[in-house]
Order: sequence, then structure tokens, then C-alpha cells
Amino acid sequence: MIKAGIIGATGYAGGELVRILTGHKGVEIKWYGSRSYIDQKYYQVYQNMFRIVEDVCKDDNLEQLAEEVDVIFTATPQGFLAGLLNEEILQKVKVVDLSADYRIKDVGIYEKWYKIEHKSPQFIQEAVYGLCEINRGQITEQTRLVANPGCYTTCSILTAYPLIKEGLIDADSLIVDAKSGTSGAGRGAKVPNLYCEVNENIKAYGVGNHRHTPEIEEQLGYAAGRPLTISFTPHLVPMNRGILVTEYARLIPGEDGSLPSYEEIRAVYDKYYAGEKFVRVLDQGVFPETKWVEGSNFVDVNFVIDDRTGRIVMMGALDNLVKGAAGQAVQNMNLLFALPESEGLELVPCFP
Amino acid sequence: MIKAGIIGATGYAGGELVRILTGHKGVEIKWYGSRSYIDQKYYQVYQNMFRIVEDVCKDDNLEQLAEEVDVIFTATPQGFLAGLLNEEILQKVKVVDLSADYRIKDVGIYEKWYKIEHKSPQFIQEAVYGLCEINRGQITEQTRLVANPGCYTTCSILTAYPLIKEGLIDADSLIVDAKSGTSGAGRGAKVPNLYCEVNENIKAYGVGNHRHTPEIEEQLGYAAGRPLTISFTPHLVPMNRGILVTEYARLIPGEDGSLPSYEEIRAVYDKYYAGEKFVRVLDQGVFPETKWVEGSNFVDVNFVIDDRTGRIVMMGALDNLVKGAAGQAVQNMNLLFALPESEGLELVPCFP
Amino acid sequence: MIKAGIIGATGYAGGELVRILTGHKGVEIKWYGSRSYIDQKYYQVYQNMFRIVEDVCKDDNLEQLAEEVDVIFTATPQGFLAGLLNEEILQKVKVVDLSADYRIKDVGIYEKWYKIEHKSPQFIQEAVYGLCEINRGQITEQTRLVANPGCYTTCSILTAYPLIKEGLIDADSLIVDAKSGTSGAGRGAKVPNLYCEVNENIKAYGVGNHRHTPEIEEQLGYAAGRPLTISFTPHLVPMNRGILVTEYARLIPGEDGSLPSYEEIRAVYDKYYAGEKFVRVLDQGVFPETKWVEGSNFVDVNFVIDDRTGRIVMMGALDNLVKGAAGQAVQNMNLLFALPESEGLELVPCFP
Amino acid sequence: MIKAGIIGATGYAGGELVRILTGHKGVEIKWYGSRSYIDQKYYQVYQNMFRIVEDVCKDDNLEQLAEEVDVIFTATPQGFLAGLLNEEILQKVKVVDLSADYRIKDVGIYEKWYKIEHKSPQFIQEAVYGLCEINRGQITEQTRLVANPGCYTTCSILTAYPLIKEGLIDADSLIVDAKSGTSGAGRGAKVPNLYCEVNENIKAYGVGNHRHTPEIEEQLGYAAGRPLTISFTPHLVPMNRGILVTEYARLIPGEDGSLPSYEEIRAVYDKYYAGEKFVRVLDQGVFPETKWVEGSNFVDVNFVIDDRTGRIVMMGALDNLVKGAAGQAVQNMNLLFALPESEGLELVPCFP
Repeated sequence: MIKAGIIGATGYAGGELVRILTGHKGVEIKWYGSRSYIDQKYYQVYQNMFRIVEDVCKDDNLEQLAEEVDVIFTATPQGFLAGLLNEEILQKVKVVDLSADYRIKDVGIYEKWYKIEHKSPQFIQEAVYGLCEINRGQITEQTRLVANPGCYTTCSILTAYPLIKEGLIDADSLIVDAKSGTSGAGRGAKVPNLYCEVNENIKAYGVGNHRHTPEIEEQLGYAAGRPLTISFTPHLVPMNRGILVTEYARLIPGEDGSLPSYEEIRAVYDKYYAGEKFVRVLDQGVFPETKWVEGSNFVDVNFVIDDRTGRIVMMGALDNLVKGAAGQAVQNMNLLFALPESEGLELVPCFP
Repeated sequence: MIKAGIIGATGYAGGELVRILTGHKGVEIKWYGSRSYIDQKYYQVYQNMFRIVEDVCKDDNLEQLAEEVDVIFTATPQGFLAGLLNEEILQKVKVVDLSADYRIKDVGIYEKWYKIEHKSPQFIQEAVYGLCEINRGQITEQTRLVANPGCYTTCSILTAYPLIKEGLIDADSLIVDAKSGTSGAGRGAKVPNLYCEVNENIKAYGVGNHRHTPEIEEQLGYAAGRPLTISFTPHLVPMNRGILVTEYARLIPGEDGSLPSYEEIRAVYDKYYAGEKFVRVLDQGVFPETKWVEGSNFVDVNFVIDDRTGRIVMMGALDNLVKGAAGQAVQNMNLLFALPESEGLELVPCFP
Repeated sequence: MIKAGIIGATGYAGGELVRILTGHKGVEIKWYGSRSYIDQKYYQVYQNMFRIVEDVCKDDNLEQLAEEVDVIFTATPQGFLAGLLNEEILQKVKVVDLSADYRIKDVGIYEKWYKIEHKSPQFIQEAVYGLCEINRGQITEQTRLVANPGCYTTCSILTAYPLIKEGLIDADSLIVDAKSGTSGAGRGAKVPNLYCEVNENIKAYGVGNHRHTPEIEEQLGYAAGRPLTISFTPHLVPMNRGILVTEYARLIPGEDGSLPSYEEIRAVYDKYYAGEKFVRVLDQGVFPETKWVEGSNFVDVNFVIDDRTGRIVMMGALDNLVKGAAGQAVQNMNLLFALPESEGLELVPCFP
Repeated sequence: MIKAGIIGATGYAGGELVRILTGHKGVEIKWYGSRSYIDQKYYQVYQNMFRIVEDVCKDDNLEQLAEEVDVIFTATPQGFLAGLLNEEILQKVKVVDLSADYRIKDVGIYEKWYKIEHKSPQFIQEAVYGLCEINRGQITEQTRLVANPGCYTTCSILTAYPLIKEGLIDADSLIVDAKSGTSGAGRGAKVPNLYCEVNENIKAYGVGNHRHTPEIEEQLGYAAGRPLTISFTPHLVPMNRGILVTEYARLIPGEDGSLPSYEEIRAVYDKYYAGEKFVRVLDQGVFPETKWVEGSNFVDVNFVIDDRTGRIVMMGALDNLVKGAAGQAVQNMNLLFALPESEGLELVPCFP
């Protein structure tokens, strides 16, 4: 039985980790870290867990945790883990970090977009970017530190990856218009996240400077084989869960000037995803909806070729707290401990 | 492996049956009945089931179904099953009926409230009212027909049952003010159920004549040991899932005129529910919220003694599609086949 | 042109005052008081007012305000106005207080339910309870201080008032089950009011101890001609605006034991409300819905006689920010300055 | 007093016309046309209008209507008006058509995208496209037929118009990602518009083939001085009202390769909109939110220059039922009768 500790267990992503690990046969949660609720019963914070979790919340003690568990999940603000991580810890325990601290290989880019100094850049190179469908081979029992991808990034990357990897679209023409439910904003008590401010409303935010932009660019840049610059615009949608991305790119015409056919594009998606349990390429003409993946680890993707404009419209949907956070973290943990990759993740989407 | 068939598999309750049975280790769904979608892939109706269910929808053939499966779930309009059920079918297969056809023992009351003629009253006495926490002993491998309780009724009854059973409240003073999410209205395309009509709105409906009233009265009457008349008012709430009931009743004072204490009332709830997996009596001062039971088979209950008025306010919450319909139906099936009662129902509530 | 000042102009009720007064021909807002946003443009707090209001927010200076305006609206926390009001101010300016400070005549009850000391009880007797439909005669050009009723109370009282006044129901049997949109909780940044906590959820709160209880009891007690004790339970509903109350009471039978007829009850409602612009008694069988009054100063009421139980179910709906707060405050202001009572309040409900 | 008739008065756009015209001093509604509700009281369909509108619904008789009123609003399905309009009618009455029948000058394009035959193409050239801010000069007392623009199109065009008109962006690079509330789908009883299907969900639809595409292309083509092809993708958002568009285009660099500055772009927006009452160019860094224009005739616009990609991101928000339909129709009517353009449209947005 793997022993797990969670730092930040009372945020929304932390809560989802608890929900998922509770149903995971090979894991036992030994530490519910939550600085705000120390010594309170965990279920008093999340009453859905009443009669399911009896433990109390503990302080965020990374050193002690490293002694007591096999894997630590950090669902914490940016900079938290980078400020505490050290070699001793990594020698004792595996870490799956749900923050952005080790996602970006170029520390200068990290510091520029996140506007904080990185306190432990020495671990950045070692960290594996935990997008399992793409980097599965690098997430092994030898891996010590996994940078769990961002919610928008997971959705944005997986939706476009096959076409960029195969050179079918002009990567610099890529525009990602993303829409997210409100749990992505976290559980902090701020006026813009109040019910009455979000409900019956939609808005863009972080236009031109959202922090997931360089993360998408870096990963899709690896696929393209060269650096990329993309447009990324997130929007806040009045719903709890779910991310939908709508991505636009110029299709590269063949030598005769014609665009690829539906079948050709579809074959490329199938090449990468036919064997992937958690990526569902929908039937032709069926577009992703966030409700269809709610509560599950699925990413649904599809596309439309627009002959009029020479562009392709790609769409992807996931649950930001599952495949966009806690579910993917568990998927990474399964790989780290050589468990079946879908263990604990056979979550059937809930509709309606 | 138990073979199950579902009639009405593409309604919301039917869909929830599919979701739950998909995760049940001892059952295999052999028949997805849906007159509206015959020969269509089930997942084309509910894309959340894409890559999970590959079967096509079939017609509603009860005779044939009885040959092929061990248990039939009917998630159908009132009168449907009563019009088709016969002795041959019941000799071959167990039936769990999610409609109201066999819930009310007095056929006159059924016909008066439902305004339809009952076509097979001969099975009413045999049918067991499948409120497991109360009637568990009667739901056995010998039982052929289970009348699965209504959503409002399950919540209303379980919230008040211990106090009525023990004679602590004046049963005739009982007022049930119930609030339901919109999935309770079903998937029929009607103007009052459109998004724009329900959203940002709350209303009462069926005031004084909702069909769940006699069902509550009958069952609580058994508990009281005499016939009861109650007030029941349902409301439509802008959310997908969940029922909350707020119940008011006069506490019967002791001989010295004093009201029972919190501890005394609590002890009565514990007497009936301490051993029940699916009924959670919350801590003092914590009131049920529908979100805390969403997606699970739990009923959360609690109460407040109001010394000023001499009344008690009881509250209960459940997910109308799970404990209020499909989950309870599976709980009944488990009892019918002597499986562990919570098999397939270890569903952790999803928050947020 | 009446000059008005608002203290607490950036809360939800204050914002609604601004919206309504902006369309009022006889009033000019001279002071947008908001301690939290001093010197910021009002429209920067509420961008809906961009290009409509150019003023900046000012501090909460009641003394100075009394010099500059004819009427002050205080949309402030309990105890704020009571702590500042004095005779000099009242000699210079009329005050419409949207808080509870002067609603309850018995200062002991106020202090017990609000758990604060009342700092200026000398003005309580003078204050007029501004429920216009009932106290219209007392709200005149001579009145200096109006206690604007609470949102739940306005709805609860108006729904039951005619029947209590005429002695048709047993006032002690009255149970008020109330449901409110989330703007009633104010704009404070608290976790329970976050979008993800409220959305897809319904709960009771303040069971047995909500502060609007004694206010309802006092006012309905005047109607009954004796003190009353009622049950009042508020619920939080996932919508921005709107209150629905469902009220239960025992009908007093006639000498022959028969209940009053629909026509008799209807006649009593008409006696009180037929001439009231803002109270709409709906047609028989049509139940109030909060969406039908949204954005308007209407209260919609109706009732059902339940012969089975001998009870009547009364229902009422209003917009908590309009008739439940700012609209009623403007209605009071109109009376204070002998303007047409509906001036600025000809707001057509917005649907959907 | 102008006499107005509405065909399709019980759809959502028709209902909004009634709401707005009810508050318009210069107009009287003489005809509430609704084939589905003939002889029913209008308020029985929309109870928000109880005690405000006493008329009954009438059949859709265009001939008779032309005798009785000065202006007809048609809020009807595509093809309805085109099938009935004739010269006699237009000689008697002005028509503001909220459908798409006369919006597109090239009847071939209309028939291709709408997949219906146009029955009265002889009036297409005469019809004026009623986007007041752009075509104001053509909407006069001489105009007989106004093609009221679509909801998505109004928002999409006004957001990009100044930059295309002034040649600051590469018009062929324009991508419009649009998000709409559900009232845009109308009041038809269809499963995809049910509450439970829309709530907690977001999806794209009509990808690559939505009918507003050629309308946007035609109008922006006039601004560009040449035909355009754009990408347009609408999304369904769980809210009642509101459209947000996020538009992406390549900025045309100056001769020195540098991009225009914020101030230069802003000056262009101000050139076109500084004098427009209903278009609000927000302050720098403030992005449009649909909630800020709800219930009003405003369009809020703003933009961000993305130096990294050389693109500009333009955003626009309106209420689809007001500026996107009924409000704009009234604005057109005001121009047709030489009334003040904002008469009846001084609607303050409602927040929250």
C-alpha cells in the first residue's frame, strides 16, 4: 500500500485528490496538509467526506512528511514547493507537484511570467513534465519529481499535439481560446469569485499574459521541433468544473494546394490517441462538451476543417480538477510506482 | 454475473442506472431499452458513455427481456409497467420498478392521485416497497417485484421516520417543504424545463396535489401505526441534481411539559441510522446541503429543536438520481441477489 | 430636485439604489459613500454604470452629508447607523435606513437577536417601519426616520398579512419556509458565498435563529392584535436575485366546521391589495416565480387551500434587491417627499 | 403615438420587444401576434407582464396588421416574412424584421447558408441593414424595410469595425470566437435546450457553418472595401442572456515594422464610438463582461495588443435580446420615425 501525503488538501484540487485517492485500491492517504485548518477534521472542511475520512488536517511539514510517506502531492501556490524542496526530501520521497514550479525548463521564463524568484532551480532539469500521454516513457520508478501540468495546458496541448507533431498545421498561427469553470480560480475568498459576480456572466481575463501561455508554448515547441509563439486567452464561465478549448490554426496545404481531408487528419489523431484510454477522439460532427467528461479523467477532442478559410478548428474538453489536476497527478503516481496507469481513475462521467 | 435489462435507459434515471451499473462488479447490462432511440448507439444519446458502452438501444420488449436477463429495471412513465406485467414474466425475472405503479397498496388512492386506471392490481400486494433502510427484511432472494420509492418520498420519509416511529412528534402536524433539482422533471422537451425558464428562478408546483404525497403518507403511516395526512410542497430549484427537504412538526412534550433535548432526539436518530451506511446524521449545527451528497447514495439528515415554537425542524438531502432513484434501485437489486448491499454504491460525493 | 446621499453605495443593495435612482426623475445622487473605495470612480466598482455615473466614492461622513443632501440612504451593516445618528442630523435630513437598526421597537429583542448593543435607542419609537402597503399613512413629509424592512420580512409579511389581519388563519400555526438568491448574502468575500460553494447546491441556514424572525413576528403581531411566535427558515438558492416564501397555516374553520372557500380568501386578498400597484395577486392556480418579478418592485402572491389538511399554503415572490431593499427604500422616499409613490419604480420585470 | 404590431410576440425576442416598448413613451403596442397562443392573454404566457399588459394574443395576419399599425416588428423564423411580404404592405407600414430574411444582399448566399428559397428577393436591395452605428444615415423616415442585424453579428461587427475600416488589421486573419447565453436558442422545446443539458456545460456548435458568418463577412467586407472570409465559432454558455466575442487578428505593422501603440488603436475606436451612446469603449485593462450590459442596449468593447504574436485581441459584449435583437429594433424604429434615437432605450444594466 503506497502511503501518500497531500500538502494543500483543502483547496479544490486537493479535495479532488482526496476524492480520487479514496477510491484507489493501492494508496492510503496518511497526511491531509492544510495550514488553514490545522487540527480540524478534514470532513468539517468538506462535508461530502463525512463518514469517509476521519483524519484531521495537519500543518505543511515537508520534512516530516518525507519520513512518513512514499509520495507527496503538493497542491499549493506557486513558489511554495520551490522554496522548500531539497535533496534530502527527494532522496526519501517522490513528489508530484500540482503547482507550476517545475513545469518550465527556462527559469528566466518562469520568473518573468510568474513574477517570483525561483528558489530551487537546481531541480528544474530533473523534473519530468507529467503529461502522461506524451511523456509516459520518462515517468518511471526512477523519477523523483513530476511537474504535473496545468489545467488549461493539458487541454490545449492534447488538442493540438498530433497535428503539430506531424507538421500538418502552421504552429505559429495557433490561437487557443479557452473557457474554464470557476473551480479553476481556487477556493480563495475574493470578490470576483463570489457567486453573484460569476453567475450569469462571462468574461476574458489574463488576455495576452496568462501564465499557462509559456507552458503551452514550451511543450508544443518540443512537438514542433522549434520555439513557438501562440495566442492564448482564458475565459471564466459560470459553471463549477470543466475546460473547453477552441483552437484555430492554418492547415498546411499539400503540394497541389489542397487541404488535408477529414480522413487524413483523423488518421493522425488516431495514430497518437487510438491506444490512449483517457483521450477520446469523438465521432465526426460530435463536438466536445465539458459535461460529458465531468468527474472523469477523460479529454474529449475533435476538429472541423474549414475549407473556406483554410483553417482547422480543434476542440478539446476536460474536467479541470481531474485530468486538469488531481486525476492526472494520480495517473502520474501510478506510473511512478509501476501501477496500472488507470488504477483509481475508472471514473465514469456524471450526466447530467 | 447478474444479467440486467433496463427499460427507459435513456431517461435521466435510466442513464444514472447505466452509470452506476457500469461500475458494479457483479452485474452486466444486457439490454438498453429506449423506444425513442432504437438501433442507435447508447453513447450517441449520452456521450459521457463514449468508449464505455458500445451497445445499441433496443425496443421495450418485456417478454423477450424476461428470457434474457435476471433482473429488469423499469425507469418508465406511470402505468407502463402495470400495463405489461404478468405472472409469466415474474416467474422468470425479478423486476425493480422505478415508477410509482406498485408503490401504493390502495389501488383507489393510486388511481385517484395518478388519474390512470391500474391494469395489474393483482401484483400490488406482492410488491415490496424498496426503502431498504426500513424494509430491508422484506427484500430477499424470494422477492419478485420491488417498488422503488420516489425521490421526494425517500428523502421525506427517511428524514422524519425515527421520530414518527418513536412517537416523538405529532405526525399530523408534519409539513414537508421540498426543493428539487431539475433532473427530477425528466428529459422530456417541455417549455417549463428549458434552461431559460428554470435558471435564475424558483417556484412551487403541484401545491396540495403532488403525487408523492400519498406515498409519504402511507409509509409514515406504517411508522406511526395509523393513517396520516401531511402537507407536502415541492419546489423547482435551478440546479441539476439534489433534493432538500425541510420538515416541520410539533414535538410532543413530556409529562412535565418540557420538550425533548437535543441528546434525546439525537439518540433516536442514532438508534435507527447509526448502523446505516447510506444515512449520515450530521454533527450538531451542521445542516444538509445537496452538494455534499451529489453523485452518491447518501442521505444526510439533521434537525434543530425550536424551543420558542415547540417545533422541530428536520432537514434531509439526497441526490435525486442516486438514492432518489437509480442508486436505491441498485441497492434493492443487491438485496434481491444477496450481494453486499453497498456493492457498486461506494460512490464518493463530488465537490465542488 | 431632491438631493440624495447613499452610505454603503458599493454593496449590492447600494448598487441597486444607484440603478433605481439613476432612472428617477426627481432625484439627484450627490454622495456615493463607500469606505472601501474612497476616491475611486463609482463605475470602476460597478462597470455596469460606466458612462452613466461619473462620480467618485466618498467616505462615510454622516455629519457632512446631512448638510449637503435632503435624504440619506444607509445600506450599511447592523449597528452602523445606530452608532452615528443624532438629533442634529435628523433635524437637517431625512434618513431611510436599510439596515435593521430601527425596525424592532423592543430594543431588548433587537439586542438579543443581533447580539450588539443599540447605541441610539432614543430614535426607535420615532422611526416608522417602512412597509408602505401597510404603514403608508405614517410615512409623510413629517417623518424623519424610516426603518426600511428586511427582504425576507417584506415578502413574508405581505404574503400572510390579509389573512392574519382578518383572523382567517391561526397565526401561531404560521410556518414560513423562505428561499433566497445569493445577493441577499451581500458582497463580502467569504468562502460560503463563492460561486463553487453556492452553485448546484441548496441548504437551510440560520434555522431557528435568523434575525428576520422577530421582525416578522412583531409586524404580523400588530396585524393579529397580539404577540405571535412563528417558525422561519431561510434557504440559500443558486441564483442572484429573488426571494420565494412558502407559508403554511391552519385555516380557522367556520362555525359549521367548513373551511373558507377560494372566493372568500381571494376576496380578503383583494380587499387589501386590489388597489396596490406593487402587490400582484395572481390568477387562481398560477404560483409566484421569482423570475417574474426580477428587477421590479412587484411582490407576487397567491395561495392554495388544502382541504385534506385544513391548511392554507400561501406563496410570495419578490426581488430581494428591489422590493426587498432598494426599491422599497425609494418607495418610502417618494412618500417622504410627497412624490407619486411609484415614481422611478415603473420597472418592468425582465424575462428570461 | 406610433402604433406598433409584433409578429412572434411570445418568443424571447418578441417578449423583450414588449418589455422595451412598454417603457417607450412614443409607442403603443396594438397587436401581440402569436400563432401558438391565439386568444390567450399575453400575460398568461409571460407572467412578468401581469397587470402591465392586458391584451390577448392574435394570429399572424400581416395584411390586417398593415391596416392597423404604423410599424410591424417580425420576430419570426427565417423565411416567414419573405414568404408574406408584398408591395401593398410596404406601402402602408414600415417593417423592422428581426429575422435574417433581408440581411444578406446576395440571395444566393442567403439560400446557400439558410437552405431555404427566398420568396421575395425583390425587396432585398431596398432593405436597409439596421446596424445603426454604421448605417444611421440610411435609416430614415423614407425607409420602409429594415433588416435588423443578428445578435452575434452586431457584437462581432461593432467590435472589429473601426480597425477594419481604418485598415489597421489584416481582415482575412480575423477569427471570431463567440459565446452566447441560451436565450439565443429561442423558446422552442428541444432536448438540447433543457436546463439539465445546458447547465454546468459549455460547447461549440455550428463550427464552420453558422449562419451569422456570411452576415459578418458581408458587413465587414463593406468596411474593408473588399470581400472577406473569416472564421466564426459560436459557443453555448450556461446563462440566460449575453454574448461575448473574442476576436483575433494580425495587426498590420508600420513601415518600420513596429505595431501600432495602444493610444493609436484607442484613438481609432474613439473616432468611431466616442459619440455613440450605446457603444462603450472601456478603460485600458478593463475587459467586457456580459453581466455589465445585461438588460441594456450597450455594447462594451475593448482590446489588448499582443506584442509577442503581433496580434490584437478585441472583445465585445452585449445583451443578445436587447442590442442583439429587440433593443436595436427599437433603435431602428426611433430612426424610422425621427424620434430621439435612445428613446425607450435608457435602460440601466442590472447588476448582479
